[in-house]
Amino acid sequence: MPRKEGLPPGTLVFTGEKRAEKVGITVIDYDKDKCYKKKIEEIDEIFPFKDEPTVTWINVNGLHQPEIIEKIGKHFGLHPLVLEDILNTEQRPKMEDFEDYIFVVLKMLRHDEKEGETRSEQVSIILGPNFVISFQETVGDIFDPIRERIRNNKGRIRKMGADYLAYALMDSVVDHYFTILEKFGEGVEVLEEELVSEPTTQTLQVIHNLKRELISLRKSVWPLREAVNGLARGESSLVGEATRLFLRDVYDHTIQVIDTIETYRDMVSGMLDIYLSSISNRMNEVMKVLTIIATIFIPLTFLAGIYGMNFQFMPELGYSWSYPLVLLLMLAVGISMAIYFRRKGWL
Amino acid sequence: MPRKEGLPPGTLVFTGEKRAEKVGITVIDYDKDKCYKKKIEEIDEIFPFKDEPTVTWINVNGLHQPEIIEKIGKHFGLHPLVLEDILNTEQRPKMEDFEDYIFVVLKMLRHDEKEGETRSEQVSIILGPNFVISFQETVGDIFDPIRERIRNNKGRIRKMGADYLAYALMDSVVDHYFTILEKFGEGVEVLEEELVSEPTTQTLQVIHNLKRELISLRKSVWPLREAVNGLARGESSLVGEATRLFLRDVYDHTIQVIDTIETYRDMVSGMLDIYLSSISNRMNEVMKVLTIIATIFIPLTFLAGIYGMNFQFMPELGYSWSYPLVLLLMLAVGISMAIYFRRKGWL
Amino acid sequence: MPRKEGLPPGTLVFTGEKRAEKVGITVIDYDKDKCYKKKIEEIDEIFPFKDEPTVTWINVNGLHQPEIIEKIGKHFGLHPLVLEDILNTEQRPKMEDFEDYIFVVLKMLRHDEKEGETRSEQVSIILGPNFVISFQETVGDIFDPIRERIRNNKGRIRKMGADYLAYALMDSVVDHYFTILEKFGEGVEVLEEELVSEPTTQTLQVIHNLKRELISLRKSVWPLREAVNGLARGESSLVGEATRLFLRDVYDHTIQVIDTIETYRDMVSGMLDIYLSSISNRMNEVMKVLTIIATIFIPLTFLAGIYGMNFQFMPELGYSWSYPLVLLLMLAVGISMAIYFRRKGWL
Amino acid sequence: MPRKEGLPPGTLVFTGEKRAEKVGITVIDYDKDKCYKKKIEEIDEIFPFKDEPTVTWINVNGLHQPEIIEKIGKHFGLHPLVLEDILNTEQRPKMEDFEDYIFVVLKMLRHDEKEGETRSEQVSIILGPNFVISFQETVGDIFDPIRERIRNNKGRIRKMGADYLAYALMDSVVDHYFTILEKFGEGVEVLEEELVSEPTTQTLQVIHNLKRELISLRKSVWPLREAVNGLARGESSLVGEATRLFLRDVYDHTIQVIDTIETYRDMVSGMLDIYLSSISNRMNEVMKVLTIIATIFIPLTFLAGIYGMNFQFMPELGYSWSYPLVLLLMLAVGISMAIYFRRKGWL
Amino acid sequence: MPRKEGLPPGTLVFTGEKRAEKVGITVIDYDKDKCYKKKIEEIDEIFPFKDEPTVTWINVNGLHQPEIIEKIGKHFGLHPLVLEDILNTEQRPKMEDFEDYIFVVLKMLRHDEKEGETRSEQVSIILGPNFVISFQETVGDIFDPIRERIRNNKGRIRKMGADYLAYALMDSVVDHYFTILEKFGEGVEVLEEELVSEPTTQTLQVIHNLKRELISLRKSVWPLREAVNGLARGESSLVGEATRLFLRDVYDHTIQVIDTIETYRDMVSGMLDIYLSSISNRMNEVMKVLTIIATIFIPLTFLAGIYGMNFQFMPELGYSWSYPLVLLLMLAVGISMAIYFRRKGWL
Repeated sequence: MPRKEGLPPGTLVFTGEKRAEKVGITVIDYDKDKCYKKKIEEIDEIFPFKDEPTVTWINVNGLHQPEIIEKIGKHFGLHPLVLEDILNTEQRPKMEDFEDYIFVVLKMLRHDEKEGETRSEQVSIILGPNFVISFQETVGDIFDPIRERIRNNKGRIRKMGADYLAYALMDSVVDHYFTILEKFGEGVEVLEEELVSEPTTQTLQVIHNLKRELISLRKSVWPLREAVNGLARGESSLVGEATRLFLRDVYDHTIQVIDTIETYRDMVSGMLDIYLSSISNRMNEVMKVLTIIATIFIPLTFLAGIYGMNFQFMPELGYSWSYPLVLLLMLAVGISMAIYFRRKGWL
Repeated sequence: MPRKEGLPPGTLVFTGEKRAEKVGITVIDYDKDKCYKKKIEEIDEIFPFKDEPTVTWINVNGLHQPEIIEKIGKHFGLHPLVLEDILNTEQRPKMEDFEDYIFVVLKMLRHDEKEGETRSEQVSIILGPNFVISFQETVGDIFDPIRERIRNNKGRIRKMGADYLAYALMDSVVDHYFTILEKFGEGVEVLEEELVSEPTTQTLQVIHNLKRELISLRKSVWPLREAVNGLARGESSLVGEATRLFLRDVYDHTIQVIDTIETYRDMVSGMLDIYLSSISNRMNEVMKVLTIIATIFIPLTFLAGIYGMNFQFMPELGYSWSYPLVLLLMLAVGISMAIYFRRKGWL
Repeated sequence: MPRKEGLPPGTLVFTGEKRAEKVGITVIDYDKDKCYKKKIEEIDEIFPFKDEPTVTWINVNGLHQPEIIEKIGKHFGLHPLVLEDILNTEQRPKMEDFEDYIFVVLKMLRHDEKEGETRSEQVSIILGPNFVISFQETVGDIFDPIRERIRNNKGRIRKMGADYLAYALMDSVVDHYFTILEKFGEGVEVLEEELVSEPTTQTLQVIHNLKRELISLRKSVWPLREAVNGLARGESSLVGEATRLFLRDVYDHTIQVIDTIETYRDMVSGMLDIYLSSISNRMNEVMKVLTIIATIFIPLTFLAGIYGMNFQFMPELGYSWSYPLVLLLMLAVGISMAIYFRRKGWL
Repeated sequence: MPRKEGLPPGTLVFTGEKRAEKVGITVIDYDKDKCYKKKIEEIDEIFPFKDEPTVTWINVNGLHQPEIIEKIGKHFGLHPLVLEDILNTEQRPKMEDFEDYIFVVLKMLRHDEKEGETRSEQVSIILGPNFVISFQETVGDIFDPIRERIRNNKGRIRKMGADYLAYALMDSVVDHYFTILEKFGEGVEVLEEELVSEPTTQTLQVIHNLKRELISLRKSVWPLREAVNGLARGESSLVGEATRLFLRDVYDHTIQVIDTIETYRDMVSGMLDIYLSSISNRMNEVMKVLTIIATIFIPLTFLAGIYGMNFQFMPELGYSWSYPLVLLLMLAVGISMAIYFRRKGWL
Repeated sequence: MPRKEGLPPGTLVFTGEKRAEKVGITVIDYDKDKCYKKKIEEIDEIFPFKDEPTVTWINVNGLHQPEIIEKIGKHFGLHPLVLEDILNTEQRPKMEDFEDYIFVVLKMLRHDEKEGETRSEQVSIILGPNFVISFQETVGDIFDPIRERIRNNKGRIRKMGADYLAYALMDSVVDHYFTILEKFGEGVEVLEEELVSEPTTQTLQVIHNLKRELISLRKSVWPLREAVNGLARGESSLVGEATRLFLRDVYDHTIQVIDTIETYRDMVSGMLDIYLSSISNRMNEVMKVLTIIATIFIPLTFLAGIYGMNFQFMPELGYSWSYPLVLLLMLAVGISMAIYFRRKGWL
């Protein structure tokens, strides 16, 4: 949510959680022959890289020092609204083509084991002619394999340009969605078994939570589709033909993620139906027990009540065979009731 | 609702609530060097501003004097239907390009603390080559920060044209939606906790009210999307390339608002499911209590009834151990019933 | 429904209710200087108007004399299918451009106070270069204000061409929808209050009727949107640029009507949820009463039953404090049950 | 369903029910001056008609002799897949333009009075430059009025080309849908009255059947829309401008049919809601009766039980006014309970 | 799911089940005059076929030896992402045009009789100028009829190019869907009868399983539609005009499959409604039995209780006609209750 009511647009206000540690900036500069990596202390150190022909990847961990973002923005000629969007961590995933550079926002998902929740973190990527600037909210290890690949010259990454690097970043974010979905799928399976074996009142709460998490997952991934498609089929000269093929692959993955989310939505809403009808079924069972007991014993109690009356002239009371006869009659009524219920399938 | 059945189109009838106070008009005239602000008494005072090269912002508070709107319309060459739309406060948000000027209608939302309701107020904006005319239903403070920025030459507003001013007005309206949604979100959270802890009959009413408010929110915001997009990607020469970038930002915000509304809709309809199944669950519980009590005591009462019968030949009645035995039997029946219910998980 | 199975297309069969009275035809012929109005007796009288440069409005009330429609069709060169559509009163709203003329079908809605129902009546409009022919099923007063405006030269109607007249007719039909919707809205409000205060079995029937009426309203208005848009943005030379602006206004109104209908649909379907859960709630209440009474008295009755047994050796029966003690015990059981239910929130 | 797993495409296998009678072929050859009709015995007899300038209509009743279809296909140069589609009676309605000819598939609906079901039968139409070949599954009388019109030179059919004939065939199929829908509508009305007066367990089955029939109706009609539109607005030189106007009329009718089907769907699903809530309402009523009876008599029975106890020291038992007092007390309790229930609205 | 988090794109990892047997490769090389078939031992044997003018079909059974896929990819110039997609068996159906070749992924469905489940297996097809490479997960017999047709020169397959072969493969996969749907339809019918005759608690589980299977079926078939359409209407020079006609046929079949799936979805969700209301109906029945019994006997028991009271002054007790009178009274109450319930329709 852009909490800037009344402030002029382009005012840089960080909307996430404030943090004490310093914003960490690393630069990796490479071409197919050499690779140079550095942890930046002073923001000015990154500026010379801009004009070199090598590919430069500037990674910014932490958004809580807007002045750093502002300096980067000024030096790389970024539009103030882009900087505002980088800091506003409630952004929807999107892609914007500013001709000189492309701005991409995506959501990195992270499963918080302790809370049992899925958290979303914003990743912004600026793709320029020969540089990529990536912004993360916190220190994350999701880009480590890419750093590894650059350092060890694994795969084609060192042979290709900045566009391929941007693709690789996006690809690793999207690939991580599958891991999240797998965890989610396990939760769904556990729930399904619970539903069949013994649904409790809490089951509904769990279904509701799954549903809510799916809604927020969907909100993170759905707009990404359009953004990636825009990159893959757009007309920007910043993205080469070779990289477009790879972006189309990311696009396919995004659609696969969306498909899976939709499938889970259908399954979770089917679970709600099962839960509700299992409540009804259990009520039915409770009612049957009550009905069987009441229906058998209420008439018998009435019979006993009759012979408990104190009329002086009740000839049956005097015969010695009356009592056993009444007991037999009661037994007969009880048994025939039981047979009736068995025929109805209630017993 | 255009309450003008039978009247010729273009007849100016104000459809909102009548008010006693006078319509308030202020003019702010500025360029990057100077800034002039004036509260207008006589409507003719605003006309000279039309032909000056500076940017003129005419703000009209209150629509209950149609003759004022008519005079403005005549002087600025506005189409009669535009004037009718300004007065008809049930308008949908929209954007219309009349070549000489652009007409935009949006809905300003206002949370009424006392009533606990969200009210919608219509804001109409006319964007001409070097002027902006804005119409509000009542006196509002939402545009104050913009006045402030113009006066203090904060941000870029003084350096840019009328199109940027129109953008700033729209931006401040859309930004305010987030505040409304935040309040709404708090209501949803309170409701969710209530649902889990102890749902009452009124909870349903609250859910229903939230749902209704969401429907009306959606109706206010949804068409805005198309209107803003039309401005940002349209072909009007009145909107400069620089401002279009800012309008695209407003467009993004609008979509973010719509996304959030949809998310709330999903959540509220999920709450209804929880509420309904919590009713069923409580019914289940009630039935269980009844069933347990009845099922334990009805057979026991029958037993007591048997030995309350007045047959003369009931040998058991004469033995001294009969009574304690029957009591023990009753205890045994009661306990075994209780065990049965515990096994079933009802106790 | 075109009840002409087996008949060749273009066969003119009137599908509505037959009527005894004669079809009423009036002609109004005007330009900005003069205005001539006449009630036609013989159909041939209208033909000379066709070739005059003035605007001619021929209004036909009643479709039950197909031969009249046929003569008009022949003289004005209308396609046989157009005539068939005029007579077939189950037509969907639509617009067809035949180059020489434009054919528009719309539905006029009328609230029948006696039946409490909304009736739909078909209005067909033929727009030619300098004439407009309108067909109504019955005599209606909805076009009276337009006649008035022509006669009194109010507004711009006399200064503009046949296209503006056609617009005015469509505008008055669409404006009337708002009146219908307002009535509908009142019904919805009454229903909502009833739902909250005391829903009865009939409430459901009322909800169902509202729903059905909305479905049929929607069917009347929804296709109109496309028809009006086709006129406003189409390429016909019969519709001037000035009139297109007005038609866009009608288009906006149509969308507003559709929006309102959708909102009512959402509200009515929300009412169904409230109704259903109010039934469940009442069932809950009934069950609680039963459970409280039964759960308190069934154990007490069992207690009384025990001391009603006729065993000879029941020492308690002989003590003088037994009876008051048992009564006290019963009181204690009853009170503790009541406390238990109060704690559960059932009392 | 193309039951040809493993067979090469274009293999002609008839998938419908096998029939004993011979496939019936009739030829009608006409122009505006003459008309010739013949029942064909030997398939070769139809070939000379192909090259004559007159319009030739070949109607084939029955698809169970694939070799006949094959011969026709070879002579008229039809694509093997077209022949396969003609024989595969599970085809979706569609239109395919093969330049030399146009292939149209539609579904003829037939209400089976005995079964109370609506059956669908496939009609395939081949439109060539001067011939139309129509294929029906069984002998049908739906095309009789067209034969009549050709023979008697009624309407414009004899004056127009093969395209108009193809239109007339499609028109008669679509017109028949209205008859089917009318029958369906009657069924819906009967059901609605039943729902209001006395819904039984079977009512649900009837609702379910209506729903299923609507689903299959929709499947037959929905794709036709696109097919007819393709013909009316397509670019084939086989369809003249005059005929296109008529095809647009068929298009309008198709949309009208679809609209009506959608309306029925909404109504039928509304009925389900009513049915379900009527079950709940009846349960409520049952519960109320039980609760009233039990709540009145259970406390009274308890009272009687107290004075049925056999304690020796129960002073009340000895007073002569005790019995009438207890009876009065019981009456008072009973009456106050009844008043309570009346106040609650249960009585 | 691409289980390659952290691996560079294009890394070949097989995601399906590992298998022990060797990957089986067969080559069929044919033109209209000759046909040569061979089982390949060493992967290099297939390379010479690439440059021959005859059509070469290389079929690879089993994906568990990525090195084989890699060699084929290198020799035929396939993009690394294509190879990755072939191995990643969680792919969505899709078509990608790489100019030199076309890559198609589809899902083969297989009904597992033992498990009663439908399994999906991925089939990848590479269509080059004169070759087709198909990849299957396991040995399947679905392509056998095509091999047969090639060997025996049945149909047109030997006379046409590689594009027709690719079509034939896709066609046989899609045709098999109908067999799957037929089996599914049988399951739906069995379920429907069960629902009407005697629904059990398990019925819901069966409905839920059908629903889930439909969701996964839909996921397999839905995207295929776009893929086949892309081939049939695309601009690739690899697909000839004649083959496009056949591909359009496959497209029609795909839509027919989707239609049928949607119909089943509607039917299955209708079943859920029937199931839920049958639960309610049964509850209603249970409650009626309880109510009837309780309502008849509770008042009677109360009556018996009155005359079981031990008051000394109860004059009725002394009369000889009291007892039979009370019995008669009880009978009367019982009978009138029964009549009341019969009138209510509960008996």
